[in-house]
Amino acid sequence: MKIDGKPHRTIWREADGGVAIIDQTVLPHRFETRRLDTMAQAAHAIAAMLVRGAPLIGATAAYGMALAMRDDPSDCALAEARETLMATRPTAINLRWALDDMTGRLSALPPDARADAAFARAAALCDEDVAINSAIGGHGLGLIEALHTRHDRTINILTHCNAGWLATVDMGTATAPIYRAHDAGIPVHVWVDETRPRNQGAALTAWELGRHGVPHTVIVDNAGGHLMQRGRVDLCFVGTDRTTASGDVCNKIGTYLKALAAHDNGVPFYVCLPSPTIDWSLQDGADIPIEERAGEEVSHITGLTDGGDLARVLLPPQGSPVANPAFDVTPARLVSGLVTERGIASASAQGLAAMFPELARGA
Amino acid sequence: MKIDGKPHRTIWREADGGVAIIDQTVLPHRFETRRLDTMAQAAHAIAAMLVRGAPLIGATAAYGMALAMRDDPSDCALAEARETLMATRPTAINLRWALDDMTGRLSALPPDARADAAFARAAALCDEDVAINSAIGGHGLGLIEALHTRHDRTINILTHCNAGWLATVDMGTATAPIYRAHDAGIPVHVWVDETRPRNQGAALTAWELGRHGVPHTVIVDNAGGHLMQRGRVDLCFVGTDRTTASGDVCNKIGTYLKALAAHDNGVPFYVCLPSPTIDWSLQDGADIPIEERAGEEVSHITGLTDGGDLARVLLPPQGSPVANPAFDVTPARLVSGLVTERGIASASAQGLAAMFPELARGA
Repeated sequence: MKIDGKPHRTIWREADGGVAIIDQTVLPHRFETRRLDTMAQAAHAIAAMLVRGAPLIGATAAYGMALAMRDDPSDCALAEARETLMATRPTAINLRWALDDMTGRLSALPPDARADAAFARAAALCDEDVAINSAIGGHGLGLIEALHTRHDRTINILTHCNAGWLATVDMGTATAPIYRAHDAGIPVHVWVDETRPRNQGAALTAWELGRHGVPHTVIVDNAGGHLMQRGRVDLCFVGTDRTTASGDVCNKIGTYLKALAAHDNGVPFYVCLPSPTIDWSLQDGADIPIEERAGEEVSHITGLTDGGDLARVLLPPQGSPVANPAFDVTPARLVSGLVTERGIASASAQGLAAMFPELARGA
Repeated sequence: MKIDGKPHRTIWREADGGVAIIDQTVLPHRFETRRLDTMAQAAHAIAAMLVRGAPLIGATAAYGMALAMRDDPSDCALAEARETLMATRPTAINLRWALDDMTGRLSALPPDARADAAFARAAALCDEDVAINSAIGGHGLGLIEALHTRHDRTINILTHCNAGWLATVDMGTATAPIYRAHDAGIPVHVWVDETRPRNQGAALTAWELGRHGVPHTVIVDNAGGHLMQRGRVDLCFVGTDRTTASGDVCNKIGTYLKALAAHDNGVPFYVCLPSPTIDWSLQDGADIPIEERAGEEVSHITGLTDGGDLARVLLPPQGSPVANPAFDVTPARLVSGLVTERGIASASAQGLAAMFPELARGA
């Protein structure tokens, strides 16, 4: 998407062949890019969350492999790079998938062909991500267009967390229909949930929408239900970390509350997802283990002081216990549809199996 | 309630006759009390939100009138005090009620009897508030006792915002059943919603529960639905700013989302309220105008730096628009019951009219 009018991806190659990323740890208050010249730098960028979001983690890992091969294309270096990169975020599914893909292809090649092949494959992985998101965006665009035709006014869309271009290589998943509508001249306005505790909405989604020029308003997570009650939300788009074969949606904590409110007020609630996010081995969302993260993410907040420095402050009383479940599960019954790269599936075992018969059969 | 073992109210008279309060603007990180020696200081305490919460505002205003009368008991001073105090928080219903009560009584007395009468009436208003909250607590206690008898384990209660003793003279409304259960030896644990944007849960409810020794855990507002899905909430207690004659509940933004989740998971959802909070003139909660407060409450967060100072930081990108609706309305159909000083009414026109026939008739 664009930053102040100039198209940008979240990861790219510089003219001299180096890899570069946006340092997302200092957004939204500072825009800083970082060079990745070695595999170790790529590993650090993932581990320290300079890059985050499953697709972008996968892409960064792929480039990490390429950087390793440029340095030393031996079998030993290949194995070591895979191991180092895999250890950065052990639970990330896209990370494993990208590293397995790269390792499989590269190990079949003679060492002196590996670096070029690795860079080419990493670039292809990035392009594939963009193509998937663009397809998701096209299908979601139809939903916005239909509402715009019916109401002939700005369409108000609510989103939670950041399933935006910053989480992917470009376009994002939940944001893809929004960017496509905006770029097509359909007037849209986005309610951006702050998304406590890590504030990805306020910090990242608001930033990327603002840089691309999409009208938006930041709200606290508490506000969405009220806005729906008063008719100020036409449509919800969210992403997902994992969706079961029956259409139960695991996503950032708080998604379930917005789905309940949408259902209670007749507001369509769509989940945007590339098909690899579907876990065909699981039926019931209640079986998904929910990661409990550090309480410090809740108790401490980082922002910009009046003096222009980044500072971290403590919110609750010192010593008050804090709990931090990171995700929740929205039951399929609350989901209007799953917007995939192939089209919009109903959130049900039948709907998903009809859209992805070869994947449903393989499970 | 207790602070480190010592009983405390939120407003009290010192041995020398001065009035004192807790400065709630520096909680939870600092516990500081302030003397109110003049009506002007009382007015400032309300306007600058050193005290907040409808009952406590009313009590502080009453003492403000007493301080004015001690200084100058003339008719002119009486009228001026009323006007000054009324202007501090123009929309607060308890403020107007307390000032009208005081003015009516005092203007009927000769000037030299006014100061003593005013202090006596202010003290009586405080005691009345405590008695109402204690009665609410007694009725809510029955709900906790019943759950404890059934499950024979710690009862997990979720609350939103601060309808605690810090918002009243003592005990609070939503917290009254919790304090009564805890003091009666029933094991309770409270999930404390952070309550963005003003963080009254994390800052005030967690502080007062912690000082009194009630086990609790601070969570982000997004987390409650997930906890209910996984069976970790037995009961919800919240307060209300205004409840309609048909039982629709206006309360801090986000209450509606918790009520939806409670309903979806079969968790009882009770609203604790003194009867003056019922607006007999209104039937439909959708007709309640919702205050839109300053965006700065959302965009800026104050907390304690690692260095021990209070600092304010900016969260979203500079320039991103922010909206801040302060309340929402929970429809009566989602409310298990209204816990009043007379007992637990069903959240319906019939239920409220049966509990308060003389008030319902007068409307």
